[in-house]
Amino acid sequence: MNDRLLRVALLGQGFMGKAHSNAYAQAPHFYDLPFRLRRTLLCGRDKTSLAATASRWEWEEISTDWRSAIDRKDIDLVDIALPNYLHAEVAIAAARAGKIVLCEKPLALSLPEAEAMVDAARGRRTMVWFNYRRVPAIAYAHELIEEGRLGTIYHYDAAYRQQWGPDLSRVGSWKLDRAQAGSGVADDLLTHLLDTALYLNGPVAEAIAVSRTFVPNRAIDDAFEAMIRFDNGSLGMFEATRFAIGCRNANTFQVHGAGGMLRFNLERLNHLEFFDATQPALEQGARDVLVTEMKHPIFGNFWRPGHIIGYEHTFIAALAEFLECLARDLEFHPDFADGLAVQRVLAALQQSVTTRQWTSVAEARV
Amino acid sequence: MNDRLLRVALLGQGFMGKAHSNAYAQAPHFYDLPFRLRRTLLCGRDKTSLAATASRWEWEEISTDWRSAIDRKDIDLVDIALPNYLHAEVAIAAARAGKIVLCEKPLALSLPEAEAMVDAARGRRTMVWFNYRRVPAIAYAHELIEEGRLGTIYHYDAAYRQQWGPDLSRVGSWKLDRAQAGSGVADDLLTHLLDTALYLNGPVAEAIAVSRTFVPNRAIDDAFEAMIRFDNGSLGMFEATRFAIGCRNANTFQVHGAGGMLRFNLERLNHLEFFDATQPALEQGARDVLVTEMKHPIFGNFWRPGHIIGYEHTFIAALAEFLECLARDLEFHPDFADGLAVQRVLAALQQSVTTRQWTSVAEARV
Amino acid sequence: MNDRLLRVALLGQGFMGKAHSNAYAQAPHFYDLPFRLRRTLLCGRDKTSLAATASRWEWEEISTDWRSAIDRKDIDLVDIALPNYLHAEVAIAAARAGKIVLCEKPLALSLPEAEAMVDAARGRRTMVWFNYRRVPAIAYAHELIEEGRLGTIYHYDAAYRQQWGPDLSRVGSWKLDRAQAGSGVADDLLTHLLDTALYLNGPVAEAIAVSRTFVPNRAIDDAFEAMIRFDNGSLGMFEATRFAIGCRNANTFQVHGAGGMLRFNLERLNHLEFFDATQPALEQGARDVLVTEMKHPIFGNFWRPGHIIGYEHTFIAALAEFLECLARDLEFHPDFADGLAVQRVLAALQQSVTTRQWTSVAEARV
Amino acid sequence: MNDRLLRVALLGQGFMGKAHSNAYAQAPHFYDLPFRLRRTLLCGRDKTSLAATASRWEWEEISTDWRSAIDRKDIDLVDIALPNYLHAEVAIAAARAGKIVLCEKPLALSLPEAEAMVDAARGRRTMVWFNYRRVPAIAYAHELIEEGRLGTIYHYDAAYRQQWGPDLSRVGSWKLDRAQAGSGVADDLLTHLLDTALYLNGPVAEAIAVSRTFVPNRAIDDAFEAMIRFDNGSLGMFEATRFAIGCRNANTFQVHGAGGMLRFNLERLNHLEFFDATQPALEQGARDVLVTEMKHPIFGNFWRPGHIIGYEHTFIAALAEFLECLARDLEFHPDFADGLAVQRVLAALQQSVTTRQWTSVAEARV
Repeated sequence: MNDRLLRVALLGQGFMGKAHSNAYAQAPHFYDLPFRLRRTLLCGRDKTSLAATASRWEWEEISTDWRSAIDRKDIDLVDIALPNYLHAEVAIAAARAGKIVLCEKPLALSLPEAEAMVDAARGRRTMVWFNYRRVPAIAYAHELIEEGRLGTIYHYDAAYRQQWGPDLSRVGSWKLDRAQAGSGVADDLLTHLLDTALYLNGPVAEAIAVSRTFVPNRAIDDAFEAMIRFDNGSLGMFEATRFAIGCRNANTFQVHGAGGMLRFNLERLNHLEFFDATQPALEQGARDVLVTEMKHPIFGNFWRPGHIIGYEHTFIAALAEFLECLARDLEFHPDFADGLAVQRVLAALQQSVTTRQWTSVAEARV
Repeated sequence: MNDRLLRVALLGQGFMGKAHSNAYAQAPHFYDLPFRLRRTLLCGRDKTSLAATASRWEWEEISTDWRSAIDRKDIDLVDIALPNYLHAEVAIAAARAGKIVLCEKPLALSLPEAEAMVDAARGRRTMVWFNYRRVPAIAYAHELIEEGRLGTIYHYDAAYRQQWGPDLSRVGSWKLDRAQAGSGVADDLLTHLLDTALYLNGPVAEAIAVSRTFVPNRAIDDAFEAMIRFDNGSLGMFEATRFAIGCRNANTFQVHGAGGMLRFNLERLNHLEFFDATQPALEQGARDVLVTEMKHPIFGNFWRPGHIIGYEHTFIAALAEFLECLARDLEFHPDFADGLAVQRVLAALQQSVTTRQWTSVAEARV
Repeated sequence: MNDRLLRVALLGQGFMGKAHSNAYAQAPHFYDLPFRLRRTLLCGRDKTSLAATASRWEWEEISTDWRSAIDRKDIDLVDIALPNYLHAEVAIAAARAGKIVLCEKPLALSLPEAEAMVDAARGRRTMVWFNYRRVPAIAYAHELIEEGRLGTIYHYDAAYRQQWGPDLSRVGSWKLDRAQAGSGVADDLLTHLLDTALYLNGPVAEAIAVSRTFVPNRAIDDAFEAMIRFDNGSLGMFEATRFAIGCRNANTFQVHGAGGMLRFNLERLNHLEFFDATQPALEQGARDVLVTEMKHPIFGNFWRPGHIIGYEHTFIAALAEFLECLARDLEFHPDFADGLAVQRVLAALQQSVTTRQWTSVAEARV
Repeated sequence: MNDRLLRVALLGQGFMGKAHSNAYAQAPHFYDLPFRLRRTLLCGRDKTSLAATASRWEWEEISTDWRSAIDRKDIDLVDIALPNYLHAEVAIAAARAGKIVLCEKPLALSLPEAEAMVDAARGRRTMVWFNYRRVPAIAYAHELIEEGRLGTIYHYDAAYRQQWGPDLSRVGSWKLDRAQAGSGVADDLLTHLLDTALYLNGPVAEAIAVSRTFVPNRAIDDAFEAMIRFDNGSLGMFEATRFAIGCRNANTFQVHGAGGMLRFNLERLNHLEFFDATQPALEQGARDVLVTEMKHPIFGNFWRPGHIIGYEHTFIAALAEFLECLARDLEFHPDFADGLAVQRVLAALQQSVTTRQWTSVAEARV
């Protein structure tokens, strides 16, 4: 069954490189993959660390030039875990070379870049690593909403709160460099919120945002807030910040509809709170559902009920589902088009920061 | 409707005196009482504070001798909020004088005392202030269990954890004096747990307990633990302690049955956690039910949904329900017989501490 | 000490009338008031219920005409618990008649009305019933912030989520009638959020808001959202809604500053979460502080540590503190000027809903 | 550095076989191991599944006879993940053959068996897979206690609550077969509680327990409860059950000492609640510490702060630390002697179930 070979080149050896390497190593352990994966090539700029990383994660070869991944005929899949500013160039080259292309989020630095990427990748299989779609609790939330359990949605609020913004030891990270990162929390945290929102609550009609840089002379945004009107009529409040002291990695949302409420926090990623307004009035209450049943989405591939999983499993599941769709010629999401959809909303938000005007997503141009 | 007069004498001006005074003052505000209550007489030993307390809570007269409450013909109801060691003597005298008798918990210092009180009160209306039966969440838990929502009960665990045991400023309190209090946490906290357990889970078959005094030369128990076998076959773990540093007033229980779970903590008294095992498997989770609906037991007499109540309301509700039963000649619980039932279990537990043997409640003699 | 008499007229016999009546009845029980309070006059339109309410809460006289409270010389204090549209007229009349004036929130239907009220009340003692300032946890949050424990504030987010918006049984309530209520959640819930925000985080510079009416043909707003820039540079996200299915009375805020975080939810009003970023890194975590210590603000007047209080106590405490300030000729907040400050921010928000523009509070005119 | 080779034979291909396989696969990815691990041999009885499992987890060879692992000279380490009844025989054989021996918990079916195992393993390096010692939160709790942060311990309560006891689909599992499992929750869940208790709170002096079988004709215990007196004077309440409907995998403890409280729940394994009683009184509260800092024990080997880990990581960490100690000739815990210590307490508990008497651990003989 898995005699079909897929030769992977991973570009990037940072934190995401580690998360992706782990996914390639672990997916065959937990999923019946339709392909045999070979970790053929690891590309990175720092040669010293590259050899060690490759050795640790069993990549067969290394290169300090990402173009070698594109040029080699024996690479089937190129996985881009590079700083944001390189996504477009690399992805377009890879797509043109006929590769399967996986790309870390955000898809691009700008809407035009993202559009060019989608154009270039037409006919190619792609994935954007919005890994949180594969949190079992989020996938399960999606199921409940799709089944209509929340009815008409009134409110979709989301926040991604981290606290490392004031941490001077992080100065020098490419994430704080406008040229490499594009922006601050907007590209980094807000795009996660937006992808989850589009996944759970559908398209955005218009929005207005404000950003703030708390550290003097920092060229990127430390915090970003937005009010959003969704196509389905619901209202959204969004906040992304690295200055929420007290919150480590609190990627949260809460959705209120006629049928009830869903509430989530990534720091408790095995849990989903579900308030079912169709229950008898006296018995209603937000349930703390431990999303670790064998029949919950995703979880059953890993351990047993109550034996919780963590951050890394979302990457494993994303990869495994992508490969399954690839083998069976099924649609997979999020692909580059989904990444572009996020970029389009982000463009509207960023435009609104500048113009201080409500901005229609359809008309955004950044 | 409420032209029938009920003249009350309250004995005691401490913390419980305040809680009871408040109940008499507030019950007419929140309930359509079948009686007009008159706060006729407040008895207490310390004359100075007595006048001030009476004035503050609008007691018409004062006396430093509790016997005056018994002797006066114009007193209908005697409410005993005195240190434990006085309960039996006063209650028996009041009952013999034909009074309605309300008594703070624990009913007595010993099983024989409690039996004598029940004997003396035969034909009289009585109440023991196990006020926590009137926490809406506990009353609602009772309803759910009575309806069979939990099915066969497997486990009934309870703990009452406070932290003031090491607090030297409390030395001198009658609660730490064996002669006045009878025991430490056993009479004080454990009796609350036992009354709630008997209310929710029925009679106890046998038990074994252990106590501990952490403070050198202290004559009472600082902590008390027990394992219990209930008549219904369920197992119980009980803990009462004043040395649970970190817990202010954590009177908790959790019950597991074939049909689900209930969980409660007095520090969050407006909440009841309910796990319904009959729900679809993927949707199961402990619900945080805010027990503040108008149709939840008790709550509707006070405010509106979500406008929470507190400690004092349990006294108001207990009094109001007692008066309602009195007027309509209905059974009321907990009465002295219920207080005796608690005492009987406590006697078995205390006996087991001494003998270090499992002890049948039926055979307990202390 | 309390031989000075204060004769009160309460206008209104609805839910707020009950909450205020309770405050007058209970304040003398828990506080050493500098005045003897007399519940002299209760005014309300429905004569039938009025007599019953007056009897229940021991108001000496009744009147169906609020003007009698103004006209009577033997009334010292007029307390307005009427629908919003009557606040200005009554308060101005009362102030002109030399009364002490207490008024339910919101102060007025519009900014000009509020300004007229402040003008009329110049020289008079006033209070606006923003009772949540007297939640012990909120008062304690104020202390911590004043002491600088949170340092520079980055984010102040607040939401007031209720769920009764779709409830057809509430149709007919004056709260859903534009003429009587002025607006929907804006005047009702958002003003609470704003007063607490001004109290804890200081003045607002500019803001932009959006509102939504989910029920067809309803003339008031069901939901209201805003982004706010505070004078201190922090960003705020605000949401007030009656369509947050799953939330009964979730008046919440969370504040992030350089020194840590505070988080609150009215449904758990005895609790305050405090994250202290000055603690050793490995030990940091949001603390669940039970704000029931005798030395915590407000709580010590009521019961003992861990014996929680509820909604009604905030009214008792507000009244008692007002009377204390009155007797000692000290400033009291929130007074009419504070109510006006809220109104000014609200005006900016409402203006921004119409203009869809960021609006400076200084320039708001509604 | 890691040129030293360690050739592993894993015995068992069930749920634990999977958890151990994952540990061997992942330890080199997250730790700088002092050995190169080779997954040389996987032993299991069912040949069909064995080949698939070996292939999935990259075991080089397979055998249906565990003795081949003992007999082969090219095996350095034998890891026993077999049903309980095989632990003693296999471990003794492996130890006598000079192997490094790792054994799943419980160490043995009886105290004599466990003693024989320790005897046989004298001079050998051993580990018992009490993996929960490597939950970062538990390791951190250990550090805090060792530093004296909790002061004198008063209470150590623990419970392991699962809910699958009534699940008929599990009938047939060796865990429900007395011959293979030895007992029910005692060997399965209670041993986990005991190992953690010995780790955190030290030796047990005496105890009394009770067990219950809720399912008719089931030969093993469904629930087990105990009261424990520790050598340090603290009291313990223990409960292990598969009939706690509503709890998936709630391995919990709470410890109260003069200095504060620690509280843990395996379902939230990245969290540790810490109440520090040395903090200013008004600020005290149980902190929700997210034990995901790089300097928290164990966590730093995996991801970044706030990027949580799960169940499987405890196995990886246990293995890696064992190997580190092995290479550096340092003591490692828990070894067979620690497993024996658990067995000794368990023996006392089981004896007390039969005799219904408090039983000294020193005198237990089962």
